[in-house]
Amino acid sequence: MAPSSEVVISGKTVAEHNTRESCWIIVHGRVYDVTDFLDDHPGGSKIILKYAGKDATAEYDPIHPPDAITTNLPPEKHLGKVDPETVEKVVVEVTDEDRRLQEMHAAKPSLSEVLNLHDFEAIARKVMQGKAWAYYSSAADDEIAIRENHAVYHRVWFRPRILRDVTRVDWSTKILGQFSSMPLYISATALGKLGHPDGELNLTWAAAKHNIIQMIPTLASCSFDQIVDAAAPGQVQFLQLYVNKDREITKRFVQHAEKRGIKGLFITVDAPQLGRREKDMRMKFEADDPAEVRENDKQGDVDRSQGAARAISSFIDPGLNWGDIPWFQSIAKMPLILKGVQCWEDALEAYDRGLAGVVLSNHGGRQLDFGRSGLEVLVEVVEKFGEKRGISFPNEKFQLFVDGGVRRASDVIKAVALGATAVGIGRPFLYAFSAYGLDGVDRALQILNDEFEMNMRLLGARTIKEVVRDMVDASSIHTHLVAVPEDKLFHSNYEMMQFAQLKVKPSL
Amino acid sequence: MAPSSEVVISGKTVAEHNTRESCWIIVHGRVYDVTDFLDDHPGGSKIILKYAGKDATAEYDPIHPPDAITTNLPPEKHLGKVDPETVEKVVVEVTDEDRRLQEMHAAKPSLSEVLNLHDFEAIARKVMQGKAWAYYSSAADDEIAIRENHAVYHRVWFRPRILRDVTRVDWSTKILGQFSSMPLYISATALGKLGHPDGELNLTWAAAKHNIIQMIPTLASCSFDQIVDAAAPGQVQFLQLYVNKDREITKRFVQHAEKRGIKGLFITVDAPQLGRREKDMRMKFEADDPAEVRENDKQGDVDRSQGAARAISSFIDPGLNWGDIPWFQSIAKMPLILKGVQCWEDALEAYDRGLAGVVLSNHGGRQLDFGRSGLEVLVEVVEKFGEKRGISFPNEKFQLFVDGGVRRASDVIKAVALGATAVGIGRPFLYAFSAYGLDGVDRALQILNDEFEMNMRLLGARTIKEVVRDMVDASSIHTHLVAVPEDKLFHSNYEMMQFAQLKVKPSL
Amino acid sequence: MAPSSEVVISGKTVAEHNTRESCWIIVHGRVYDVTDFLDDHPGGSKIILKYAGKDATAEYDPIHPPDAITTNLPPEKHLGKVDPETVEKVVVEVTDEDRRLQEMHAAKPSLSEVLNLHDFEAIARKVMQGKAWAYYSSAADDEIAIRENHAVYHRVWFRPRILRDVTRVDWSTKILGQFSSMPLYISATALGKLGHPDGELNLTWAAAKHNIIQMIPTLASCSFDQIVDAAAPGQVQFLQLYVNKDREITKRFVQHAEKRGIKGLFITVDAPQLGRREKDMRMKFEADDPAEVRENDKQGDVDRSQGAARAISSFIDPGLNWGDIPWFQSIAKMPLILKGVQCWEDALEAYDRGLAGVVLSNHGGRQLDFGRSGLEVLVEVVEKFGEKRGISFPNEKFQLFVDGGVRRASDVIKAVALGATAVGIGRPFLYAFSAYGLDGVDRALQILNDEFEMNMRLLGARTIKEVVRDMVDASSIHTHLVAVPEDKLFHSNYEMMQFAQLKVKPSL
Amino acid sequence: MAPSSEVVISGKTVAEHNTRESCWIIVHGRVYDVTDFLDDHPGGSKIILKYAGKDATAEYDPIHPPDAITTNLPPEKHLGKVDPETVEKVVVEVTDEDRRLQEMHAAKPSLSEVLNLHDFEAIARKVMQGKAWAYYSSAADDEIAIRENHAVYHRVWFRPRILRDVTRVDWSTKILGQFSSMPLYISATALGKLGHPDGELNLTWAAAKHNIIQMIPTLASCSFDQIVDAAAPGQVQFLQLYVNKDREITKRFVQHAEKRGIKGLFITVDAPQLGRREKDMRMKFEADDPAEVRENDKQGDVDRSQGAARAISSFIDPGLNWGDIPWFQSIAKMPLILKGVQCWEDALEAYDRGLAGVVLSNHGGRQLDFGRSGLEVLVEVVEKFGEKRGISFPNEKFQLFVDGGVRRASDVIKAVALGATAVGIGRPFLYAFSAYGLDGVDRALQILNDEFEMNMRLLGARTIKEVVRDMVDASSIHTHLVAVPEDKLFHSNYEMMQFAQLKVKPSL
Repeated sequence: MAPSSEVVISGKTVAEHNTRESCWIIVHGRVYDVTDFLDDHPGGSKIILKYAGKDATAEYDPIHPPDAITTNLPPEKHLGKVDPETVEKVVVEVTDEDRRLQEMHAAKPSLSEVLNLHDFEAIARKVMQGKAWAYYSSAADDEIAIRENHAVYHRVWFRPRILRDVTRVDWSTKILGQFSSMPLYISATALGKLGHPDGELNLTWAAAKHNIIQMIPTLASCSFDQIVDAAAPGQVQFLQLYVNKDREITKRFVQHAEKRGIKGLFITVDAPQLGRREKDMRMKFEADDPAEVRENDKQGDVDRSQGAARAISSFIDPGLNWGDIPWFQSIAKMPLILKGVQCWEDALEAYDRGLAGVVLSNHGGRQLDFGRSGLEVLVEVVEKFGEKRGISFPNEKFQLFVDGGVRRASDVIKAVALGATAVGIGRPFLYAFSAYGLDGVDRALQILNDEFEMNMRLLGARTIKEVVRDMVDASSIHTHLVAVPEDKLFHSNYEMMQFAQLKVKPSL
Repeated sequence: MAPSSEVVISGKTVAEHNTRESCWIIVHGRVYDVTDFLDDHPGGSKIILKYAGKDATAEYDPIHPPDAITTNLPPEKHLGKVDPETVEKVVVEVTDEDRRLQEMHAAKPSLSEVLNLHDFEAIARKVMQGKAWAYYSSAADDEIAIRENHAVYHRVWFRPRILRDVTRVDWSTKILGQFSSMPLYISATALGKLGHPDGELNLTWAAAKHNIIQMIPTLASCSFDQIVDAAAPGQVQFLQLYVNKDREITKRFVQHAEKRGIKGLFITVDAPQLGRREKDMRMKFEADDPAEVRENDKQGDVDRSQGAARAISSFIDPGLNWGDIPWFQSIAKMPLILKGVQCWEDALEAYDRGLAGVVLSNHGGRQLDFGRSGLEVLVEVVEKFGEKRGISFPNEKFQLFVDGGVRRASDVIKAVALGATAVGIGRPFLYAFSAYGLDGVDRALQILNDEFEMNMRLLGARTIKEVVRDMVDASSIHTHLVAVPEDKLFHSNYEMMQFAQLKVKPSL
Repeated sequence: MAPSSEVVISGKTVAEHNTRESCWIIVHGRVYDVTDFLDDHPGGSKIILKYAGKDATAEYDPIHPPDAITTNLPPEKHLGKVDPETVEKVVVEVTDEDRRLQEMHAAKPSLSEVLNLHDFEAIARKVMQGKAWAYYSSAADDEIAIRENHAVYHRVWFRPRILRDVTRVDWSTKILGQFSSMPLYISATALGKLGHPDGELNLTWAAAKHNIIQMIPTLASCSFDQIVDAAAPGQVQFLQLYVNKDREITKRFVQHAEKRGIKGLFITVDAPQLGRREKDMRMKFEADDPAEVRENDKQGDVDRSQGAARAISSFIDPGLNWGDIPWFQSIAKMPLILKGVQCWEDALEAYDRGLAGVVLSNHGGRQLDFGRSGLEVLVEVVEKFGEKRGISFPNEKFQLFVDGGVRRASDVIKAVALGATAVGIGRPFLYAFSAYGLDGVDRALQILNDEFEMNMRLLGARTIKEVVRDMVDASSIHTHLVAVPEDKLFHSNYEMMQFAQLKVKPSL
Repeated sequence: MAPSSEVVISGKTVAEHNTRESCWIIVHGRVYDVTDFLDDHPGGSKIILKYAGKDATAEYDPIHPPDAITTNLPPEKHLGKVDPETVEKVVVEVTDEDRRLQEMHAAKPSLSEVLNLHDFEAIARKVMQGKAWAYYSSAADDEIAIRENHAVYHRVWFRPRILRDVTRVDWSTKILGQFSSMPLYISATALGKLGHPDGELNLTWAAAKHNIIQMIPTLASCSFDQIVDAAAPGQVQFLQLYVNKDREITKRFVQHAEKRGIKGLFITVDAPQLGRREKDMRMKFEADDPAEVRENDKQGDVDRSQGAARAISSFIDPGLNWGDIPWFQSIAKMPLILKGVQCWEDALEAYDRGLAGVVLSNHGGRQLDFGRSGLEVLVEVVEKFGEKRGISFPNEKFQLFVDGGVRRASDVIKAVALGATAVGIGRPFLYAFSAYGLDGVDRALQILNDEFEMNMRLLGARTIKEVVRDMVDASSIHTHLVAVPEDKLFHSNYEMMQFAQLKVKPSL
């Protein structure tokens, strides 16, 4: 994109723009004026100001897609080329925090000691940078929905069958007509490089090895083509789409994706605006210069309300509506799926309009808090489709997916028994590669495989088709219970009973 | 009120009355005999006795309405004017506690770091004086109802709609015919100066800025006229009314209010007697002289049973009844609303008698503990009105309000979806100004605005009219669950599973 | 009873019987052989052995009814009179524990600081001897029922009425035709002297002052006549009856009671055997000599299975049955009530057999664990009586009572609304006098009175008759919920959200 | 089995095979090549490698059945006899951990202080070796089912009957036609010697004393014949059967058992593959050599996924199915019961195929997590049998059993009231002998007996036949509740009410 007759700027000139009022930086040999972008930077202004007037490449590279700066900054802020002779070398400083995290990384348990998907999260929290952890783990408002997403699986119990020959069990399936070794796919999640330098490529490689499908996110921190290029021959990929206010950009993107072999387009419909994620927002204050925060407070002119999520998402069109569906059908031949449906009425509308399926999801609890879990909505959708259209699920013609809160193969199996074609898993894989890179994702998928084998056998289901509605008891799924507030006075008075006691105080 | 031929008393004479047996104080240059009032003082006797025989003005001013002493003391205790020359100057002492609170105030996070209404409460608790905190935060008996008020919102979940063009969303509405920028109003709460020297005026000013309606409390610590005078041109205010045993006083007050432009009269009907609030009562013992407490105990003649709430409320008429309604209708033209209705039978009675609406409320949990939450009663009322009178809600002719426990715009939206015209919010604003004054209330309203914008979009509702019953699942709202007592022996034996462990003890 | 020609024994002879093998003690100048009684002593053998061969009167008096030893020991163990000249004086030793408890007593809050019935329990636990606390507070098995007894009240919520003239409220009522100032009575509980030297007399005196009814326990530690003698003129008392295997003893007791003016006989039917109360049992090991415990263990011949409850209850007849009812009806004219009914079938049987009422109770959770609470059974009984016999409650002809778990006047009011004539309160009064003697019980009743006044007003009920079924929502009362076990791995991973933080660590 | 012409190997030769690459050990004078077995060893490889090239007999004996090594190692790994003269004596080292456990054992409370079955678990945890504790206490996945097994009993409440002559109560019964002094049996659990050197014999001896029935496990660590030989004359034993892939082995075993007098065959049908028990798996890493773990990790070739359970269970046939039932009926005359049925459909199938009964069980929560508890399934089964076949329970012709989570006689009684013939108890007896050997099991049974006596009396049931359906309220049994995630911000803000406080800080 750099014009051949590009302006050349001296390092000295750049170095003069080293304040909040005028802030230039050098990335990959080019000069950018980021003054107006400081408050929008997902990682906070502090880290940019550290490189004001300097070469930020070494800091930039590990966590941004190559084209992040060129795409996000308006062309007039692309000031030109720097004369390399005149630039002072910048050494990326190793902070105490960096050293602490290195120690944590060195202390990680071996991968074979990681026994389940919860383990990855526990380890990732300890080895990840605070702001990366906050971005991945945060959710909307009081973070009720994110936790309900998992809790709902605990309201569903199994009704296993015995005395079936389960010597051979097979849990592979087809998703939108494509083979998958398990009834799950890697769901789209943004900013993979926050957790690991290889970002989303970790997922691509592991998906190839395990024959499962990766859904590429619009907001990946690797570029779309990098991710597609990393795929093995014949490897299937889907694309998650945030629709741009400028429909031409969206059209080009979708048609490019189809040309590159993408087999399903998941249009996100639950994010006309990104949710308020307060953990993420709080972290931003730490990443900002405290003096500035107070100063801006006085002036009242800085909206700091959306943490890392804001800048990267401002292009998303809140005007997207049902009227746009025919247009999508005109620009793409691949199956179109709506991602983020939360009631049967909208699922039915999608079906009636000829779409290929819906993802029942509350966006990992990151959008509207108190949106019900995908699994709960699934039960409602299956019931209403039976009643209104006489069709049952799983169904090849119109496929139902759920995501959010899945941690065990048994969770996946519950969703399948209730009518889902497959389940999307997101955060657990992020945590897996944040802690262990590709090997972590590989191990996570291996664990799921082991769990599938065991659960299919114990459930008495030899194939995914044998995972049927009668195998689960979901009668409590719609109950949203909040206990009456605890009677603190009464219960404080209750003195717990004791066990028989050892005669000496054990050293343990 | 001071008669022109007022008695003049020398400071020396006053100084002789410096004991519990005879206690005179000087306020604004006048002498009062407060001996009999000591035990009734909401702030305890100790603080008055400190000024026995002295000038208490500097201590009095920051926390009392100007006319508090003249109104509360019978005329015969107004002894006359003091000769200013003869009075010793009193220096208000700065205590260790004062200094500690000043430090806390200095350490407050900047307002932009305050992200939700919970934050104000967390900060207020740390920066407020103990007795003020106790008065604001306390509730009746075991404080079950106050917590249920919030918990009930967590039994209601959303059923959001997708693919609606939500580029523009508008959450303004009309309350009793008056414009409001949000479907909420500032509910009446007493004794604002306990939290901040400007007291209720903080609310008036912030309400003006945000175009919302303030309900002025009878028991404000600023005078009614001060609050009305502080309003901007055209600013709408409501009045909350405690009905006096002397109906003439009430009549004068109501008619004065109507003359001053008040647009709605909210008659409190859930407080024939103020509730026992034990946190507040306990605090009173600290504010009293411990030696006295023991002494009085022996004599058994002091009723210390109602903390700060008692003295200020003794005028309230427990005899108020349905027979008084026509009289109210005869003395006021503005809409009359009953505040504190807790079952459909009484709501229906109010409707049949031609009132303008009801506030479904348990008085913030401060009156009858185990009164159900306003939100739960709302569901019952809407259902029964449909059944008995064939009308639906929201309804302009008869408006339903709820209050108690609201902390998020999403809470407000749930109430609106269930049929409320608007929701009252009280304590959160008290906490906001106790910590940050006017700026705090301003910020609180800004946060609510931000939350409304996000939630309306994510819910797929472009106007308040589009917030409909189908958008919520309230099927668990009537369930009052108390778990079977925990099996302490069994659960103590259960050894929690462990995650894979880091090899070294992290310093974190 | 001591025969005129009583044997006289020298102190020296007594002193020789100072071992576990032969253990004599002196009480009130008489000699008893307690060797065989050592293992049955509710307070453990250790304390008796301390006085083996000595005068135990000073230790005995504060905690036993005068006739305890004469009644419990078979006549042949009454050895005779001691020659007072020959007995060494015994000084009751003040232990470190005694000193600690004295300090605790001195540190008690003043009574006016005690605001509710929970307070008495919190204080009693700190000032009572361990074994007394264990006897009072313990319950059967896993102590689920004792806690459910209170929890059940939290599943019942109020539906208060407004705009009724509640200037005057009156919560007095009639119980079995007798006036009571409140719809409650003091329930029978054993061994009052464990908590206070005046034992049950504290209750008698306080009941007189407050015009309420005391139910005298068979197992009082004051004698029956002491308690009746302590009553004020016209004071009403009931009697709780454990039926003796020897019916003649029971007959004499009942007829004596009736002669002394007892107005109601509550026959305990839920205790054919006393429940296992493990807290109490564990305490017994501490009260026993540890060496002995191990020794007996080896011999396997000591049954230590029932703590303080055993010895005092061995006379109770497990053979008591419906066939005995006519006999009771033949020996007493006063109303007969069955205490400890736990299902509608038995309540109906009692009604059909002409009894005056039933106490729906699980014996304070001290007998069969997982027996439902009286309040829950009440709802079932009222419903079934309506269905089977067409009668409603409260009902003068057949009265329903409940006990267990009551801590607030609001609890009592809930029971009355659901059909109870009155409610029994036991432990809270024990804790009140254990901490403060008579003044404690007086204060407890005063608190209940204050609570009644407030609650009657806030509920809109001017008399007990106006406390009706519609005033409560008990729709969740039969739900026995146990949450699915917590997902420890998932929830450990969830990192709690934080509030905005003060900039410095507050000293608080 | 050792051939007469066995090879003789010198101790020196053996000593050369002392590495992971070639590992020989001596047990009972014979040499075994265990190189390939290292990773399969339930106790980890580390302990074997410690004896590589040496005599392991002293370490082997206390925890293995005599024939464990001969059965588990293929014949070609049985290398021959060692020349005893040439073997160095091995002294079993006493580790710090051993010493700590010895101290713990010495500090155990006396048995008479053990009051309930929970106590044994609390003590066992402190006195057992970590890996033994992990094997016994672990369960599948998130360990939800294991805890639900107990929790379900707390959703069932009693409806006791009064005024029945309960002087004599009798809780003996018949199980599959055999007398049992209580309606329970000792359920089959594996590897008894992990807890105590006498292993399962502790159970045999105690069962004889108390006249109850022991179910012998296939995976006992004493041999089958040892256990049968230990039985008293006339003592009844059942056999639990894991079906071998080689049906001939199973046939020989079953027919041998029948010949030895076994009275019932419980065929396990819920374990085609053993569940993943992560506590057990984590413990294995500690038992392994950490260097090895990392090394193997790199090579990716060690499957360490099933802890102690794997090696011992690899023979189990996942192909077992309904088609095998006639074959079982052809080889055995004793009653055949399916152990591990989890839904009514399979129970009905078992009935229709002429089996003698089913054990409704989720295998102590060790197989499929979220399998419902046996008690809950029991309610469903009884209801469906009534509906489909018109038969009721308990029923001599087709008997229902449940196991899992039982800790009290009251739990057993609930199961019987709901239709079970008897209940299986497993872990509590393991914990009892792990802490106290035979005396522990004896005490556990004595406690259960005491509890039965009390509960039968208090329930008003004189015989097991009188324990009827109406005596329990199980209306909440099918409710699987998971509370809505806690509102952490709101609840953190709630400041707990305080009790009245002592004036000084008690030393307690």
